[in-house]
Formats: sequence, structure tokens, C-alpha cells
Amino acid sequence: MTEIDDNPISAQQCADAMLGNDACTKMMGMTLISVGRGHSKVAMTIRDDMVNGHNTTHGGMTFALADTAFAVACNSYNLPNVAEFCTINFLNPAFLGDLLTATAKQVHQQGRNGLYDIMVVNQDGLKVAEFRGKCRQIRGQLVATE
Amino acid sequence: MTEIDDNPISAQQCADAMLGNDACTKMMGMTLISVGRGHSKVAMTIRDDMVNGHNTTHGGMTFALADTAFAVACNSYNLPNVAEFCTINFLNPAFLGDLLTATAKQVHQQGRNGLYDIMVVNQDGLKVAEFRGKCRQIRGQLVATE
Amino acid sequence: MTEIDDNPISAQQCADAMLGNDACTKMMGMTLISVGRGHSKVAMTIRDDMVNGHNTTHGGMTFALADTAFAVACNSYNLPNVAEFCTINFLNPAFLGDLLTATAKQVHQQGRNGLYDIMVVNQDGLKVAEFRGKCRQIRGQLVATE
Amino acid sequence: MTEIDDNPISAQQCADAMLGNDACTKMMGMTLISVGRGHSKVAMTIRDDMVNGHNTTHGGMTFALADTAFAVACNSYNLPNVAEFCTINFLNPAFLGDLLTATAKQVHQQGRNGLYDIMVVNQDGLKVAEFRGKCRQIRGQLVATE
Repeated sequence: MTEIDDNPISAQQCADAMLGNDACTKMMGMTLISVGRGHSKVAMTIRDDMVNGHNTTHGGMTFALADTAFAVACNSYNLPNVAEFCTINFLNPAFLGDLLTATAKQVHQQGRNGLYDIMVVNQDGLKVAEFRGKCRQIRGQLVATE
Repeated sequence: MTEIDDNPISAQQCADAMLGNDACTKMMGMTLISVGRGHSKVAMTIRDDMVNGHNTTHGGMTFALADTAFAVACNSYNLPNVAEFCTINFLNPAFLGDLLTATAKQVHQQGRNGLYDIMVVNQDGLKVAEFRGKCRQIRGQLVATE
Repeated sequence: MTEIDDNPISAQQCADAMLGNDACTKMMGMTLISVGRGHSKVAMTIRDDMVNGHNTTHGGMTFALADTAFAVACNSYNLPNVAEFCTINFLNPAFLGDLLTATAKQVHQQGRNGLYDIMVVNQDGLKVAEFRGKCRQIRGQLVATE
Repeated sequence: MTEIDDNPISAQQCADAMLGNDACTKMMGMTLISVGRGHSKVAMTIRDDMVNGHNTTHGGMTFALADTAFAVACNSYNLPNVAEFCTINFLNPAFLGDLLTATAKQVHQQGRNGLYDIMVVNQDGLKVAEFRGKCRQIRGQLVATE
């Protein structure tokens, strides 16, 4: 579904500009599932270099996935935003081979300040983590329009 | 410096048990600088697969470093602890080639609940992030003593 | 609307047991608007002893309202829960005379751990704050059934 | 002890300007113990209208005390700051008659952004809560110098 607004740059173009040359999300094997104004969905499979000796996923990998969905969602208006403050609740462990999906949605946007919630679930829909992120808009554009 | 207490397993042995077969921290190239009861220091150099197209470090990489220092510190008594809730304030960006050091210290420990602060700085001592983590002790031992 | 389940004590009875002799919420003039399993709505009018010299509401008053809605919601199963960790984002100031309403909903409940989101709005529906709280169940019951 | 700097308005003057006509902190009976650039100490005795039916202090009262110490500390440079995001870990309950002291210290200050840690202890030095607050400077001065 395409969301219609008068922004000449689509949310998909913003995501492409962000992720197109992002070596880190490529290294982690993240896949953008969907993106729209203020929301996104990103997935990642837990590899054997993302777990500890007990095959439990490193919390940093789960955070990185959620943080990427957050970044895609809060940059979807072609206005660059940076993360200022994030919180993460770890609710269930994730394991080797799990397919994690992070769904980001805008909770609030006012002036230069945005607040987003990102839920991470595994392939069975079990909640792995709840992430909340506060971002702040900086100058410029992701994709130049002039 | 060795901290003397009556725990038969040293903080170093706990860290070795945790990190010895931890594929994820190896993949990220983390180095344990020091560890004691309730504290630790872990370092990591930002590689070209840890940054985005602007050579800025992915927030997930910074979080992963802080989270590792947190895990080493809160598991240093040979009592296994898991992270429940973490917050991170991003204070300055980190860039390709930066050497980040995360220093974890115990703020509070009571019953099964622990609270830790982890500061991440770059090679110039500039603060990159402040992380606070709440952990909860689970059953068992990291290194069996009986 | 009554939610039907096999718990002999209703959410309303739990709320009555909590708030019935709670001197602090009475002092602040809070009113329970509604309660059900895992959710609640509590309102409060900002008085002249809840503001500073610029007639702006003290953040502690806004937090107290949200925290009360959180407590009512997370204790609605007749299982006593205590707040462990809370975060609050202040989104817009509240002023003398504003009628604030805090709406709490359960995000996650598993074992003894619960996670709740509480939104605080003013009489115009403007968001004043977003609160997230983690609670942990302790022993006992709010209302004895045996 | 007086801290010497070239700011014509002292931290004490800033605190006086903030608290002088603050009806809310007066209502709660808070006392400013000390203040300097980037730090403060504020105390409050838990009254019978600050507790619930079990004589346990409402979390909102503890938060309000910590938030006040935070506000005094982050406004001590005569540059007005507002709280954006706060987290609080409740570590031990406080009870009727307890004398709580909140000690605020600056963790980071850069540009318009500040980060403060506030520890709340009771009269026995037992930690009641750890609070972390992020503030942002707005325009103007607390005490006009021109």
C-alpha cells in the first residue's frame, strides 16, 4: 500500500538512501520488510556469530535490529533524525536460527522531537523485546530535492 | 590488582567462562581489558562493517559493547545474571577507526537485583554513550564449584 | 462493561482495595475513571499547589498520576505487583487547571514480570507524557479469597 | 563552599528563583540542602498524605523529590532547562516518617543537552531510588542579567 502525501520523496526512497550503503546492517543480514511514513518492519536471522556459548542471542544484536527499524521509521519523512535515548526491555531470549522481526511505529512527533516504539518478535510471534526510542531531527535532507 | 574475597571463583574466571566461547563478542572483536567483582572494562575498534554510509557507527554496535561490559561485570560473582532492562543515551557519534572503551560499575546490588552504569568513551576520552542496565540473578553458577 | 473471567475478585474490587485507603492519591485528588484486567484510566485536575511560579505542572505530579494508573492496572488481577523501573517522556507541559487523564494498558505479562504503557493527555487530547513501567509480582493477594 | 566562576548569577540565586514561588515543592515540604553548578541536594519527610494504606510512599512522591533535585541542578547555570526524559529504578520502599534526600549530579553537558543522575536515600543511607534525567536548554535566563 502506498501512502499518499505531498512529500516528493517516498518513505521507500528514504529507506533506500539510508540502507543502500549501510555496511553494518548488511553485515548483520538485515532485510527491510516494509516502510511507510513513521513506521517500518525489519527482519534478521540469528546466525552462529550472533550468539554466546549457550546459543543465546547477544542483547546487542537484538538492540541493533530494533534500532535499525527505529532509524528507518524516524527517517521516513526525508528529514534526518538521530537517536538520543533508547530503552529496551528484554522479555524472552532469542536463539540461534531464530528469525526476528522488529516493527517500529511512531508514538509522537512534534517539532524536532519524535518518540517511537519498536517490538521485536520471533518466528512464533513470541515477544523478544520492547524498545522505545527518542529521536531528534537534525538539519538537512536524506534525499536532496533541490 | 586482585580483589581478595572468599569466593573460590575469581572475577577473571567468570569472565573467561562467559567470553571463552562467545562467538558474538569474538565476531565484533571485543577485548576484555579488566574485570573485578562488579566492574569491568571492555574495548572494541570500529570496523568498516560497523558503520553506515557516513562512517558513523551503528548505535547497535555501541550498545553491544556496553552490554558486554555490563554482562561481564554483573556476572563477576559467579552468579548468573540476565539483563532485564537497559537504557542508553547517545551523547556523541563514534566513527570508523575509533577505539571505544566501555567501563561498567555496579550502582546497586540487593537480593537478586542489580543495577549497573556503563560509560562508553572513544580514544580521546570523549563520551559516546551512557548506558544503565538492570539485571536479575537466575539459578545456577557460571563455573561449577561442587 | 464487565470482563468475564474465573477470577473471583474483579478488577474493580482490586482497585477499591488499593485506592480505598490510599491517602496520597486522595491528597492529589485523583479519580478512577475505569479499570479492567490489565488496564485502567485515572484523572486529576492540576491545582495551584501542583504548579511552579509559571503555572506549569511539576513533573512529579504528572508522574504520580501515570504511576497510579500503572499501579491500578498491574494490580487488577488480585496479584500484588510493585513498580521496579519506570521511564517517562515529557512531551508537552501541563498547566494550572488542566484535567489530565492517564490511560494504562498492559504491553506484556509473563511469569512475575509485567510491562505497561501509560499515556497522559490533557482535556484537549494533547499528549503530556508517555510513561512505561516494569512491575514485578510479589507474594500474596490484594483481596484475600481464602 | 562557594564555587568561583565568571557567571554573575550564583547557583544559589538560580535555585532561589526557581523554588521561591514554586507552590508544588512547598506543598510537598521540600527543603533545599545545598546547590552548586550542576549539582544539588534536596530533602523531604514522608507525611501521612504521601503514603498508601500500608504506609508505603507513593512512587510519585519519590519521583517528585528526585525530579526537583534534578531541576535545581540542571538550572544552576542560569540557563533554563526542561526535563525531556527521566528513568527511575525503585530499589527499596520508603515509609511514613522517612526523611528522604535526593542528591543530583551532572553526568554530561554538551550544547543544549544535559544528563543528570539523582540518587535518593533514606535517613539510614539506604538507597530508595536511582533516577536519571535528560534535559534540554530552552531560551532565556532564570535571572535576568541585562
